[in-house]
Amino acid sequence: MANTPHKAPRIALIGLGLLGSSLGYALKKKNLAAHIAGAAQSPKTRARALELGFVDSVHSDIKEAVENADIVFLNTPLNAMKDIVAQIAPHLKVGAILTDVGSAKSCVIDDLAPLLPDTIALVPAHPIAGTEETGPDAGFAELFEERWCILTPPDNTPQAAIDVVADLWKNIGCTTTFMDAQTHDLILALTSHIPHLIAYNLVGLAATLESDMGDDIVRYSAGGFRDFTRITASDPIMWRDIFLRNKGAVLDMLGRFNADLAKLEVALRNDDADYLQSMLTRAQDMRPRIIAAGQDTALPNFGRKK
Amino acid sequence: MANTPHKAPRIALIGLGLLGSSLGYALKKKNLAAHIAGAAQSPKTRARALELGFVDSVHSDIKEAVENADIVFLNTPLNAMKDIVAQIAPHLKVGAILTDVGSAKSCVIDDLAPLLPDTIALVPAHPIAGTEETGPDAGFAELFEERWCILTPPDNTPQAAIDVVADLWKNIGCTTTFMDAQTHDLILALTSHIPHLIAYNLVGLAATLESDMGDDIVRYSAGGFRDFTRITASDPIMWRDIFLRNKGAVLDMLGRFNADLAKLEVALRNDDADYLQSMLTRAQDMRPRIIAAGQDTALPNFGRKK
Repeated sequence: MANTPHKAPRIALIGLGLLGSSLGYALKKKNLAAHIAGAAQSPKTRARALELGFVDSVHSDIKEAVENADIVFLNTPLNAMKDIVAQIAPHLKVGAILTDVGSAKSCVIDDLAPLLPDTIALVPAHPIAGTEETGPDAGFAELFEERWCILTPPDNTPQAAIDVVADLWKNIGCTTTFMDAQTHDLILALTSHIPHLIAYNLVGLAATLESDMGDDIVRYSAGGFRDFTRITASDPIMWRDIFLRNKGAVLDMLGRFNADLAKLEVALRNDDADYLQSMLTRAQDMRPRIIAAGQDTALPNFGRKK
Repeated sequence: MANTPHKAPRIALIGLGLLGSSLGYALKKKNLAAHIAGAAQSPKTRARALELGFVDSVHSDIKEAVENADIVFLNTPLNAMKDIVAQIAPHLKVGAILTDVGSAKSCVIDDLAPLLPDTIALVPAHPIAGTEETGPDAGFAELFEERWCILTPPDNTPQAAIDVVADLWKNIGCTTTFMDAQTHDLILALTSHIPHLIAYNLVGLAATLESDMGDDIVRYSAGGFRDFTRITASDPIMWRDIFLRNKGAVLDMLGRFNADLAKLEVALRNDDADYLQSMLTRAQDMRPRIIAAGQDTALPNFGRKK
């Protein structure tokens, strides 16, 4: 376990949704920040953040929010980050660390690195944690506990800055790991982006078929469909940006998914029971391994009472 | 709420897995059966069923199990039903009711109706309930509570027999509804069979990519992938049969799914942010409606502590 830094840093949170608010709560719970400044576009979000107390101050002007900050967290959709950093870069303190929680990492480096002076360290990060809810009321301090946080620092980022960010994540419950941004983007395309894309596609299809099927889809959703709707209750803007900004890896994995699905379809048309059975069996050990790795509950139906 | 029948029927359960054992528990809890005879191929399953007590007797010979039964439930994979009924049909009591819990219904009628004398009533049914677990240890009496049970009786089934089966399901917690088998098969293809097919396809893809990606897929599964692994922890034989025996409806819905996914892929290639956003937004009201209909928990992340 990492130690708490000797002198707690001043932190700025840009974006106060699920991730921003959870970060605020977690940092406060562990007493890891001297001051937490929050910035959000919506006056309602800012007022609510102050009321909930996971920030110490709120700012409509992001330049004001980052003033004197030692660490700035970007917790916004991916496509919003470039403009924000273009605005704040000239106002960042010398030696400040810029980090983020975005779900794709190559685009963050491509967008942000060119905007930063040498005196600012860029430490892109991605905590693999979340719920389907959005907004400041969705946050909670325990979101990151027993979760992985992947850091993808560019080669020229000073080790001391990487350590500061990694220690913060460790102190709020994550296990940290390091990889290059391209590897991250390919793995997450498979473990997160494609699952979301195909779930959005299926639930969207159901929505368009609803005029024919009335309330039947809602009624009989317990056979599997309802699980997909949890995933598609997530923020569509955030996900639009993830798909667009991790396009290469998403298209790569989608191509593989489609190729396998086409084989399954042919087997089904040919009544090839043996092929179908072998395909349905090949992934059986995945769930016990995920449970053994502490990444999901072992309870049937996720422990749902319903 | 339906009344308990005046004279409790003798019931035979063919198949003692998740559904068979849950039926046994539920029928016993509500005192709805004079006797429950259980049949299973595996000696281990039979011994365990007796030990757990959700049946009163067990039988390796299915003809013996259905002797004197008023109602026979088939709780086996779809492709096993025809052979079973060919064996038991000559031994069924005059006036007995044959029902099942299979996930596709047209094939059940096509397979079984020709094998039955006029003195046996066929009442195909499908409780929309389950977990990813299998076997006699997976069952519990509350599985069917607040769930729908769809009945698809052929035109020539006597109303009295339909009422008996519907009342049993109501008495163990289901809301019953009636539709023709073709409609059932199309709706369930969308709400259950396609979700399983694409989940199996994705988790299977991940399994084949694992040699490249090491343990990364397991580690970083909390971003969506882990939900798919729950679905694919289900019995592969059962699902093989569902896909094969509901082939027409599954291929219909799969074709629609693929057509929509191809449009999403083109939009992504063209950086068409507006189209993507509209597609991701169109299904947003599905989850609140499912929650309002009592078919899923409102808690974020299904209420998982992890």
